Amino acid sequence: MSLLTVGTVAFDAIETPFGKTDKIVGGAATYIAWSASYFSKKVNIVSVIGDDFDMSELEELRARGVDTSGIDIKAGKKSFFWSGKYHLDMNSRDTLITDLNVLLEFDPIIPDSYKDSDIVLLGNIDPNLQLKVIEQLTNRPKLVVLDTMNFWMTLGFKAKLDEVIGKVDVLTVNDAEARELANEYSLVKAAKKIMKMGPKYLVIKKGEHGALLFHENEVFFAPALPLEEVFDPTGAGDTFAGGFCGYLDKTRDISFDNMKRAIIYGSAMASFCVEKFGTERIRSLTHQEIEERVKDFIDLVQFDIVLED
Amino acid sequence: MSLLTVGTVAFDAIETPFGKTDKIVGGAATYIAWSASYFSKKVNIVSVIGDDFDMSELEELRARGVDTSGIDIKAGKKSFFWSGKYHLDMNSRDTLITDLNVLLEFDPIIPDSYKDSDIVLLGNIDPNLQLKVIEQLTNRPKLVVLDTMNFWMTLGFKAKLDEVIGKVDVLTVNDAEARELANEYSLVKAAKKIMKMGPKYLVIKKGEHGALLFHENEVFFAPALPLEEVFDPTGAGDTFAGGFCGYLDKTRDISFDNMKRAIIYGSAMASFCVEKFGTERIRSLTHQEIEERVKDFIDLVQFDIVLED
Repeated sequence: MSLLTVGTVAFDAIETPFGKTDKIVGGAATYIAWSASYFSKKVNIVSVIGDDFDMSELEELRARGVDTSGIDIKAGKKSFFWSGKYHLDMNSRDTLITDLNVLLEFDPIIPDSYKDSDIVLLGNIDPNLQLKVIEQLTNRPKLVVLDTMNFWMTLGFKAKLDEVIGKVDVLTVNDAEARELANEYSLVKAAKKIMKMGPKYLVIKKGEHGALLFHENEVFFAPALPLEEVFDPTGAGDTFAGGFCGYLDKTRDISFDNMKRAIIYGSAMASFCVEKFGTERIRSLTHQEIEERVKDFIDLVQFDIVLED
Repeated sequence: MSLLTVGTVAFDAIETPFGKTDKIVGGAATYIAWSASYFSKKVNIVSVIGDDFDMSELEELRARGVDTSGIDIKAGKKSFFWSGKYHLDMNSRDTLITDLNVLLEFDPIIPDSYKDSDIVLLGNIDPNLQLKVIEQLTNRPKLVVLDTMNFWMTLGFKAKLDEVIGKVDVLTVNDAEARELANEYSLVKAAKKIMKMGPKYLVIKKGEHGALLFHENEVFFAPALPLEEVFDPTGAGDTFAGGFCGYLDKTRDISFDNMKRAIIYGSAMASFCVEKFGTERIRSLTHQEIEERVKDFIDLVQFDIVLED
């Protein structure tokens, strides 16, 4: 099985209450690829970078079974750069700099060798580009997962975003975005409305408050692991999505019951991501560490009640 | 087994985005007693009211096995009255009126017939009064549970609150209060500090985001049930505590594993509470409804992962 992701590969500069970084490697597709690489045998990336990028990063990804041939390297151009500063609660942040650079010219071309990918994860980019990706997939993938954000829910992009949402199997958004998309405060009502727009499954990410998976009339909840310290939340949502899709790809099972497991594995990967700056922690995990972390999730929510009739 | 609770029995007037009430029966001990009455054979209340109170309420409580003889009725005086208005998110509210009335004279006397109560739940009142209750308990109860709030964490009351916290087995606070009490943003760090103050168990209530139970190095998480509509959150925390303590009392088991079950039953009771104004919904539950609701919690968090070695 194989996983295709389309999204940003970029530089970030991050400031948290615990410290700050210079330019480090970031971008949704980077986090997704690192996270998925612990599960998927083959991860295919489509992205765009400038020739200022740290090319050793691509080598490291290739060493983990990630195919980077779909990353378009623009000569003489600069990579996408984002800089942000987190507040003490780590749930809110100020964007300090957004230099789109090569992202302005991003025209995602899916190499023929990627076209048989079983699972497609569309990272958070312009819905016009996400739609372009879907249109190039001549073989319908087993599962198309879409991540997006509130920026694309505004006037100029909303119709296109709705069109993309109508074509995917799973949508992942955070709680505020689910509310905005459905214009409903109740997440249960919002989920019902959003599933009527197309996706059979909806994942609502609530950061430190965990994640909800909706499907038809069913709902599953996975907590976030209570951590002593959240060092840097950047990329946690992408790491979650990468683990979620990677696990589904590895296990070749897209049933609701297996999606629950995938949510737990995705949550485990995200819980590692926030322990250090950027991708640092998710570059060096062992399978044993991941299994132990999943065990922490089991211990966290497991209880044993025998119901009376 | 029996449960003693000490707390307010009062009038509330509530406004939510869905409607508003006239004066209705409220108060922490009222919610606790109704909720615990589905589990405990005998619930003993110590409180104070004026003779303006709706005495049929006490009859209804007695019909559910609640002993109201410890409620001091002050002739010619008015009952405690609170009025509040919730915002759309239901997590924040403005207090419109607080008429302490008889609460200013509250001097909790524990009747002899209450002194062998197995579980004692100290509702949110002045820590000086909570301490007075503990000092009257000549037989050490099996479990003393303390609920409090940020108001008592300020200069004039903090030392006394710390003294009470040092004498109880379980403390229940919300997330903001845990952070304030421990002066730590991380709830894991806050929990460790608070347990060093005395309680062997700490419950951190996170409203719509569920509840955490800490004990030594273990942690258990119970989600709140995702509801289509939260109609009125008033009393949800007290209903949770009443269900939690009632379940422990009924099952005569205060182990960590049974506390997990108690958290789920408490959460189930709270999920009913918020469905209607005031105590309306938790006055008319059947045991079958409660078991079905607990089943909803099991379905919400249950997953099945076989770990690799």
